[in-house]
Amino acid sequence: MRKIDVCPTPELLHLYHLENKIVVVVDVFRATSCMVTAFAHGVEKIIPVAQIEECRSLQQQGYLAAAERNAAKVDGFDLDNSPFSYMKPALAGRTLAMTTTNGTLAITKSKVAHRVVVGSFLNCGTVTGYLRNQPFDVLVVCAGWKGKYNLEDTLFAGAVVCNLKNDFAIEDDSALAALMIYDAAKFNMLKFIAHSSHVRRLARLNLTRDIEFCLRENLYDTLPVLENGALVEGLK
Amino acid sequence: MRKIDVCPTPELLHLYHLENKIVVVVDVFRATSCMVTAFAHGVEKIIPVAQIEECRSLQQQGYLAAAERNAAKVDGFDLDNSPFSYMKPALAGRTLAMTTTNGTLAITKSKVAHRVVVGSFLNCGTVTGYLRNQPFDVLVVCAGWKGKYNLEDTLFAGAVVCNLKNDFAIEDDSALAALMIYDAAKFNMLKFIAHSSHVRRLARLNLTRDIEFCLRENLYDTLPVLENGALVEGLK
Repeated sequence: MRKIDVCPTPELLHLYHLENKIVVVVDVFRATSCMVTAFAHGVEKIIPVAQIEECRSLQQQGYLAAAERNAAKVDGFDLDNSPFSYMKPALAGRTLAMTTTNGTLAITKSKVAHRVVVGSFLNCGTVTGYLRNQPFDVLVVCAGWKGKYNLEDTLFAGAVVCNLKNDFAIEDDSALAALMIYDAAKFNMLKFIAHSSHVRRLARLNLTRDIEFCLRENLYDTLPVLENGALVEGLK
Repeated sequence: MRKIDVCPTPELLHLYHLENKIVVVVDVFRATSCMVTAFAHGVEKIIPVAQIEECRSLQQQGYLAAAERNAAKVDGFDLDNSPFSYMKPALAGRTLAMTTTNGTLAITKSKVAHRVVVGSFLNCGTVTGYLRNQPFDVLVVCAGWKGKYNLEDTLFAGAVVCNLKNDFAIEDDSALAALMIYDAAKFNMLKFIAHSSHVRRLARLNLTRDIEFCLRENLYDTLPVLENGALVEGLK
């Protein structure tokens, strides 16, 4: 039977074997929710980069560039880290460069996997439908917050485990715990994570609308996959 | 208000500030349960060491020595990692050297804290009673399994957070998640963690009696604390 596991933060990624696995990277608030929204609105390609300097260099080469640190837009860039910023018709067909505090780092650290896909609640059903039909073990990599565990990415990991538990064996305790937390939270995720550190952080910045949006399930049918260092639509 | 947080595995300890905090190290299955049982039966001192060679060297100096790797006793040592081995009257007044896969490493990595205490379900009430009366923030350090997250240490961390939640503010998501998991499990912990990786590992070794024992709450009134590199009874 195929196996599914959860890496609670990229800081623990060195303890996992990524080869021959499909890695699902998630950063619910808000990087991967933005990426999924962008592809759903016709963006052609997203180049995830770990460093601000690299993102600026791509901007100077003519790419639209998004840079976020500590939940705020970095000065001089075109786009922030709100999913609503990625719904603009002008983005269709464009290539974006993107760097965020946690999400893009998790993607670049996962690139040795057989395949890297980008997940969020917005495309959860599309991701799990895809995984069910692939002959590979799965590792959900939670982006966390600056190396630490976070609740919203764990919730998403639990949702993936929940959707796949009839087809995959749960490999380890972090996947089991994620499933338990999702089971406890699934009927009212917003209320459940109201006390989480990131919700408190975003609420201080008046980003409650973003929080609510990022928790909506199965809004988009898109599957961003990493190919040659850039994300593209995998359903094409 | 004082704060309480949870470090899910020693592999993430570098992300936390330990200075001016009391660290509670827990390795439910079975290192810290053994230590607590040993002090409850009159052991004078326990020297936790990270490496087998160091433990062997202390044995050659005349100490009773306990060494466990991968849940089994290492050849040539006096004691294994079962709490039942620490109930013998012959151990009273003795000093032990101990090395285990996860627990002793977590203790030695935590030593820069203001104070390090050893927790387990067996002495949970004594630990939380002590913490409530100290003017310091608290960090529960879960020993985990070879750097990875585990469920039983998270459950204990959740029990500590639950006991202290009226006196301490929950600092971050790992503490919040531990509390949620404990709340879901507290009425039948044994059933709840039956599928955890360590319970499966220990059950294969016929250690079900150890598992049941390590989940008993408030059996002993003892508080092992780290002083000059060795654990001693802190209630004296």
